Amino acid sequence: MEPTDRTRVNRGRNRAVADRAALLALLDDAYIAHLGVTVGEHPVVLPTAYAVDPDGPDHGGTLYVHGSVAAGWLRKSGGATVCVTVTELDGLVAGRSSFHHSMNYRSAVVIGEARLVDDPDERLRALDLIVDHMIPGRAATLRPSTRKELAATAVLAVPLHEASMKARAGGPVDEPDDVAAGTWGGHLPVTRVVGAPVPADDNLPGVGVPDDVAAGSVRGRSRG
Amino acid sequence: MEPTDRTRVNRGRNRAVADRAALLALLDDAYIAHLGVTVGEHPVVLPTAYAVDPDGPDHGGTLYVHGSVAAGWLRKSGGATVCVTVTELDGLVAGRSSFHHSMNYRSAVVIGEARLVDDPDERLRALDLIVDHMIPGRAATLRPSTRKELAATAVLAVPLHEASMKARAGGPVDEPDDVAAGTWGGHLPVTRVVGAPVPADDNLPGVGVPDDVAAGSVRGRSRG
Repeated sequence: MEPTDRTRVNRGRNRAVADRAALLALLDDAYIAHLGVTVGEHPVVLPTAYAVDPDGPDHGGTLYVHGSVAAGWLRKSGGATVCVTVTELDGLVAGRSSFHHSMNYRSAVVIGEARLVDDPDERLRALDLIVDHMIPGRAATLRPSTRKELAATAVLAVPLHEASMKARAGGPVDEPDDVAAGTWGGHLPVTRVVGAPVPADDNLPGVGVPDDVAAGSVRGRSRG
Repeated sequence: MEPTDRTRVNRGRNRAVADRAALLALLDDAYIAHLGVTVGEHPVVLPTAYAVDPDGPDHGGTLYVHGSVAAGWLRKSGGATVCVTVTELDGLVAGRSSFHHSMNYRSAVVIGEARLVDDPDERLRALDLIVDHMIPGRAATLRPSTRKELAATAVLAVPLHEASMKARAGGPVDEPDDVAAGTWGGHLPVTRVVGAPVPADDNLPGVGVPDDVAAGSVRGRSRG
């Protein structure tokens, strides 16, 4: 058996998950996206909060990222082709050989022309979605953003049309000889835990944890 | 107070951590890097396993990623300027306003000219480092890689010389009026848990979890 051939088969048959539901589930599970933009003559990859509107105005729905208007890379991305990658690590795979060590993961790669969001209503909606992606329900409990805050914030929209997803799950796929030699193989599941809320030092006396924050923590425990 | 100005101060004073020890600690804690390469006329960002050799042959030490030689993006990266970003999410920050919601994180951005590793000894060492980054001590317990396996694997080296790190920790920084209004603020710590080893179905009878795998799980519990 050719390991190279098998790798190719693995890629094509098991890892290419052309499933929009799985894509949206991953984008809901993860908290951070890595945005690739070209700056000068090379790519720069930056971590960023994000949110998804499956029914957003762009082809295939819209992924939103935000940042300070002072961040040049974000403003320069408007009209440029960018890549947004979201990855969740689900496990470490201990194969019986170096070659068959791997990771369990889900990853989405979205490539598209970024659009700097000008419409005030869409900007407000995108910012609410980003807050609610972290803590569902939180946005509705907050005061409206001020004009100064909105003027300081840039929002970038990326169409979800051109998105591909890959995933790996389960234990190692090893050479039969290595299994027969008695080497141990298996995997270590990896999960993310969102812990109990830590109140800020300056909360007024008697101000308790709101329901949305408490629920966000609970939801987090069951995620990714 | 100008929120925009404060954002700038936060960026400069609190978030720019020019500390090589902190950089190496982050690169040790995390499991996945996001590699940005230019493919055609736009960036592509791909998740990848990696390892660091602080004393590697490149300026500032070496970060290694590997992949199948069948992966065109990896071979094409040789000689190109790439960006490798490693991010750990440490918390969700619930401010008293949409504007002051944030995340606690550590992130390193490494930009450099990638080098396709040809030297056989360096390739072997890099592949061992990548296995040991997942499960410390594992590489020494495995059979040597075969010539076919090595021929199927490409290794890319990126110098650590041009690396910048940012970090945020702690609770929200809010407007005094919002604190005085009695809105709750705080943060939700986020940790990663590496669970107990799950043996593969095809382990021979009596083959138990090796010490290095058991220890890797324990180490994982205390990380990131």
